[in-house]
Amino acid sequence: MAEPLRKIVIVGAGFGGLSAAQKLANAPVQITLIDRQNHHLFQPLLYQVATAALTPADIAVPIRQVLRRQKNVEVVMDDVTGIDTANQQVQTETGQAFPYDALILATGARHSYFGKDDWAHHAPGLKTLEDAYGLREKILTAFETAEIIARDDPKKAQSYQTFVVVGAGPTGVEMAGAIAELAQSLARDFRHIEPRQTRVILLEGGAHVLPSFAERLSARAKRDLESLGVEVRTGTMVTDISPGRVVTSRDPIACETVLWAAGVQASRAAQWLGLDGGHVPVDATLRPEGHKDIYVIGDTARHVPDGATHPLPGIAPVAKQMGQYVGHRLSAEAKGVPFSKTFRYRDAGMMATIGRNRAVADLMGLKVTGFVGWLLWGAAHVYFLIGFKNRLFVILSWLWAYITWQRGVRLILRDQTGGGTSSRRDALRSFGQ
Amino acid sequence: MAEPLRKIVIVGAGFGGLSAAQKLANAPVQITLIDRQNHHLFQPLLYQVATAALTPADIAVPIRQVLRRQKNVEVVMDDVTGIDTANQQVQTETGQAFPYDALILATGARHSYFGKDDWAHHAPGLKTLEDAYGLREKILTAFETAEIIARDDPKKAQSYQTFVVVGAGPTGVEMAGAIAELAQSLARDFRHIEPRQTRVILLEGGAHVLPSFAERLSARAKRDLESLGVEVRTGTMVTDISPGRVVTSRDPIACETVLWAAGVQASRAAQWLGLDGGHVPVDATLRPEGHKDIYVIGDTARHVPDGATHPLPGIAPVAKQMGQYVGHRLSAEAKGVPFSKTFRYRDAGMMATIGRNRAVADLMGLKVTGFVGWLLWGAAHVYFLIGFKNRLFVILSWLWAYITWQRGVRLILRDQTGGGTSSRRDALRSFGQ
Repeated sequence: MAEPLRKIVIVGAGFGGLSAAQKLANAPVQITLIDRQNHHLFQPLLYQVATAALTPADIAVPIRQVLRRQKNVEVVMDDVTGIDTANQQVQTETGQAFPYDALILATGARHSYFGKDDWAHHAPGLKTLEDAYGLREKILTAFETAEIIARDDPKKAQSYQTFVVVGAGPTGVEMAGAIAELAQSLARDFRHIEPRQTRVILLEGGAHVLPSFAERLSARAKRDLESLGVEVRTGTMVTDISPGRVVTSRDPIACETVLWAAGVQASRAAQWLGLDGGHVPVDATLRPEGHKDIYVIGDTARHVPDGATHPLPGIAPVAKQMGQYVGHRLSAEAKGVPFSKTFRYRDAGMMATIGRNRAVADLMGLKVTGFVGWLLWGAAHVYFLIGFKNRLFVILSWLWAYITWQRGVRLILRDQTGGGTSSRRDALRSFGQ
Repeated sequence: MAEPLRKIVIVGAGFGGLSAAQKLANAPVQITLIDRQNHHLFQPLLYQVATAALTPADIAVPIRQVLRRQKNVEVVMDDVTGIDTANQQVQTETGQAFPYDALILATGARHSYFGKDDWAHHAPGLKTLEDAYGLREKILTAFETAEIIARDDPKKAQSYQTFVVVGAGPTGVEMAGAIAELAQSLARDFRHIEPRQTRVILLEGGAHVLPSFAERLSARAKRDLESLGVEVRTGTMVTDISPGRVVTSRDPIACETVLWAAGVQASRAAQWLGLDGGHVPVDATLRPEGHKDIYVIGDTARHVPDGATHPLPGIAPVAKQMGQYVGHRLSAEAKGVPFSKTFRYRDAGMMATIGRNRAVADLMGLKVTGFVGWLLWGAAHVYFLIGFKNRLFVILSWLWAYITWQRGVRLILRDQTGGGTSSRRDALRSFGQ
C-alpha cells in the first residue's frame, strides 16, 4: 500500500511562504497554504499605493492565481489562531484544524508603537493594502480640507498641509519623498492653497536616516530628501501623538497627518509556539529549538548567521531565500534524498529610493546613487514582483508618471456621502462657526 | 468699473456637470464645481470593477486633475444639503454657502428598492466605486467561503456559489454575464468546489431582458446570457430578500449573494427645489418651471422631447449633451451673445454587452450583435472615458483579459484580520460545530 503523502502546512503567503510552496511543486507532498488575505502582497511598493502612484492591483496577486497549476497545493483563506504542537495541528478562526507532518510559519511582521499602542489610531502604519489606501485617503483628504479652510483663513489651513513621517528607515524615507512629490504634482489643482508650501517632516530618533546603510549613502539620502523640500530631523524622538499634534524631543509640530514607519515587531507566531518575546529564534536549518518539524522564516524569524553579530534584516530577499531553502529541504526529505545543507543568505545588498531620479543602493560594497541608483531600484523591484501583468502595468505606470509628473491614482474611494469622514466634517463645522 | 464675473455653481461632476464646466472654459464667469467625491466616475464600467476586470483608477479621474488648466473654475469637495433659492445660495454639509447667479444641478441618480429599503442591506447596488469594490469583495469571498465549507459538505456550499442579479436592464445583464465569466475563470483555482458549477440567476419582472431595446436584440441577449450559463427568468418579481434567500413570484432561491440592478430614482435635487416626487421636470431649455436661473440635467432631470411620449433615459450621452447645451447657453449669456436654441438630443443609439464577443447594439436602427457588436461597445466606452491614461490602461486590461481569459483584479482588500467579514465568520463557525 502506498504511503500517504506528507502533509505540509504553510502559514502566510508572503515572499517566504509562497517561495516555499513553489519550491515544493514537484515533491510528493500535500501542501495547505493558509493566509488571512486572498492575495500575495508586494510590500516594498505599498508606499506607492499610499501616495497614489500605483493601484492595489499592480502590487498584489491572488494566491490562488499564482498557484493554480500546482496540483499538490490547496489555498485556504483563513486566520490561524493557534498551533497544537503535541497533536501536530494548526487551528484557525473558523474552527478548522489542519494536521501537518511539517509546518512552515511565514507570518511576517506588524507595526510596533514601542508600547504606546494608542498612537496607532493617530499615526497609522503601512502593512496591508487596506492600510495603504486608507493612508492615501487621509493624505488626499487633508489637501481637500485645507482648500476649504483656506477660502476663509489660509493660516489655519497649514496644519492640514503638514505631514509628519516617523522613522527614517527605507519605508519612512520612501514615504516622505513620495508625499513631497505628490504635493508638488498638485501645484495647479487648487485655488486657495499652494501645494508647494506643503511641509513634510521626517523624524528619526537615531543620528542618521537609513541607519542600516553606509554613512555616505545616508548623507546622500538626506541631501536628496532636502532637495525635495523634506525637513529631516535626526536625533529627534517622538514623545506624544494626539489629534493635530506631534510632540517631540525638540518642538511640538501642528499637523493633521502622521504616518508611522518607526518600528516593527514579529507576528504572533512566537505565542503560538509558547515562546516569550517577539521574534522566533531559529537555528541554521531555520527551525526553533525543540521543534524538529516546524520551520519559521521571514520577518517573524530571528536568524543570526554564523560569525555575525546581528540577525538578518526583515527584507524580501531574506524571506524569499529562506522559503526556497525550506522548500528545497522538505522536498528532498519527502523524496528520501539526503539533505545536509544549512541555510546561507546570499546578500545582494540594499537599496532605497527618495524620489524621481534619486535613490541610494549598496550592492555588496558598490555604492550607486542618483539616476542610475533609481533605475537599479526600479529594475530590482520589478524583478521581485510576481506576475507578468503586474510587472507590465507597474512599468507603464512609472513611465506615465515620469513623463507627466502626475500621480495616476489620486482617488478618495470611501463614500463621502452623508458627511464624509467624521473628523473632516467636525473640523470644518467647528471652523465654519 | 468692470462688472463682477457671473457666478455659476455646478453641483455634481459626472458627465453632465463636467461637460457644462468644460464648455464654459472661455466664458467670463467664475465657476464653482461641487461634488461629494474627489473624482469623476465612469459609471458604465463600474460593473467591471465589481467583477474584478478593471481597477478603480481605470474608470475614475480626480476632478481637479481634469480641470487643472481651466482657470475660471474652482473645485470644492463637499456635500450639498440645500438651496436657498430666494437668496440664490447653495448650502453644504460643512456649513458653507456658495452664492450663484446661475445654478446647474447635475446630481445623478440613486438606487430605488420600490419602498423596501431594508433590502438595500442584503442586495447592494452599484453606483459608486465603494459599492463596486464592496461587491467585488462579496463575490470573491463567497467563493472562498464555499471552498472551506465544501471541504466537509459540498452540498452546503452551493448557496455560496449561487448569485442572483435583480433587474435585466443593461446593468443587470452586464453584471450577470460578468459574474458568469468570472466564475469560469476561476476553474482551476479551487480544490474543493467546481467554479463551473456556479449558478447565476437573472431575475426580470417584465417580459424581456433589456426592455428598452428592440425585441430582436432582447432575444439575442437572452441567448447570449444562456450560452454563458446564466439562468434568465423573465416575468419574475422579487417579493422578499433576506440573508441567504430570495423569494420570487416563482420559487424561492437559496443564495448568499444578491445584486440589485432593478430600479433607480433621482437624487434629492427635487427636494432642494421644494418639489414633490423624484425627478425634476424641465422644459426645452432644461430649466424647471419658475426658476429662470436654475438648470437641472442628467439622470436627475425629467425631460420629454417635443413630440415624444417618454422622457429621455438616464444614460451618459444624454447627460453629456445636456451639460454641453447648458454650458453653451450660459457662456453665450455671459458674453452678451444672443442664444435662442432649445435642447435637442442627438440619439446615437444604445448598446449593452453580455460578455466576451457578445454584445447587442442598436445604432439608430442598425442592429449589431456578436463580436462586431462587442468591439463597437468597447470602442464607444473607451471614447467616453475621460483621460488618455484611463483609455490606455483600460484597453490594455481588456487585451490582457482577452488573451489570458483571466480577471486582473481579483483582490479582497478589506483586512481579514481578527475574523474577516463577520457574516462569513459566523457562517463558518456555525458550520464547524
